[in-house]
Amino acid sequence: MTYAVGMRLNRGLVFMSDTRTNAGVDNISTFGKMFSWNVPGDRTMTLLTAGNLATTQACVSMLAERTKAPAERAPSILEAPTMFQAARIIAQTLKEVIDENAATGQRADSAFHATLVFGGQIKGGPSRLFLIYPEGNFIEVGLETPFFQIGETKYGRPILVRAFDPDMSVAQAVKLLLVSFDSTIKANLSVGAPLDLMVYEEDSLSEGHRMRFEADDPYLATISATWGDALKSALDQLPDLEIDT
Amino acid sequence: MTYAVGMRLNRGLVFMSDTRTNAGVDNISTFGKMFSWNVPGDRTMTLLTAGNLATTQACVSMLAERTKAPAERAPSILEAPTMFQAARIIAQTLKEVIDENAATGQRADSAFHATLVFGGQIKGGPSRLFLIYPEGNFIEVGLETPFFQIGETKYGRPILVRAFDPDMSVAQAVKLLLVSFDSTIKANLSVGAPLDLMVYEEDSLSEGHRMRFEADDPYLATISATWGDALKSALDQLPDLEIDT
Repeated sequence: MTYAVGMRLNRGLVFMSDTRTNAGVDNISTFGKMFSWNVPGDRTMTLLTAGNLATTQACVSMLAERTKAPAERAPSILEAPTMFQAARIIAQTLKEVIDENAATGQRADSAFHATLVFGGQIKGGPSRLFLIYPEGNFIEVGLETPFFQIGETKYGRPILVRAFDPDMSVAQAVKLLLVSFDSTIKANLSVGAPLDLMVYEEDSLSEGHRMRFEADDPYLATISATWGDALKSALDQLPDLEIDT
Repeated sequence: MTYAVGMRLNRGLVFMSDTRTNAGVDNISTFGKMFSWNVPGDRTMTLLTAGNLATTQACVSMLAERTKAPAERAPSILEAPTMFQAARIIAQTLKEVIDENAATGQRADSAFHATLVFGGQIKGGPSRLFLIYPEGNFIEVGLETPFFQIGETKYGRPILVRAFDPDMSVAQAVKLLLVSFDSTIKANLSVGAPLDLMVYEEDSLSEGHRMRFEADDPYLATISATWGDALKSALDQLPDLEIDT
């Protein structure tokens, strides 16, 4: 499993992903699931992956190879004129990888499935954020749904739904994401630290700020330790029900 | 789907269940999933059901018929000497119902599956709380896991894990449950109000306090409306991360 979130704030884009992959609870590993491409002053793009690791690695490798060998016919996301076109290239690549595996005998092609969150900005347009399905189609965030989650989305969703505000600061967004991830990590062994964070400031067209929270990161530990008390005091603020028992 | 929770507090047992059943999003109905039996001064028992409605209704009907016709050979939960024996009877009944349906041609017997939470107290013993599996076996709450969830458990779990305290008052427990249910209802259409509540005070051996929260219940509405703000202020209490972007 995996847990990854991309959100679009008024100030830019924020991405977070875990790094645990597993084939059963007795076979877990650490693999990054956050990839980014940057041409300073022109474009910056980030990709989060969830699903079959062979599929997502093949997909990312194909995208990366194309950016390095622009002479090849296949289109490169570094040359796409818009974020929409870049998303189409990624979606097409994902679909090709899945189809290729599915065609070699394996019937249950769901085993090869993967879902991606892709966001960034290309000069001349606003930042955009997409959710790409294994079928090769995709949707974009809207005002009503300003973030996308992939992987094990349920545990961490209520806090995002309740507390997300597109006007929030980057620091607030990071805090919100860490709480959402901490809730998920506590509940599902197949999601785990280190956590990768990427913050992209709108219109900067720069690489963005990337950092990693290790399992023993002091800030992550503080959030995890104090959130329980904060929740309890939030519950205490709510009025009690009057019942006679 | 369904969402139901049974929890064991030091003060007694608290149960909550939703009432929505669905066969696709275009076919939803309201059915109670909370059943109780009481012999004042001797025993009180509550059952929560999740899963195939035909299975759970058949199971509850068989249990109820046996309590009304004690001359029948089949054992009645009203005559079981202990909660453990009562749980065995229910588990056996559940397994029989599922086996009966599964034997009539349907291969995918998972379609008939159901899971139950069963708790109560019989004179001479403490209150006990069990989670009964479709296979006919069951587990009991322990100090480390003092509550059981069935159905759509993920959305509402983080708040329970964080804020549950066996020492909490009934009013606090009801508040906690309503927040957990509200988070689930907001995320999954197949869970919905009215919500049934049952509060049993330890050693009372009385019927317990049962009430229903309709979708427009003012207390439920207050909890739902104020929880978002309470969460935001809880997040604000946490320290910000210092990052340079």
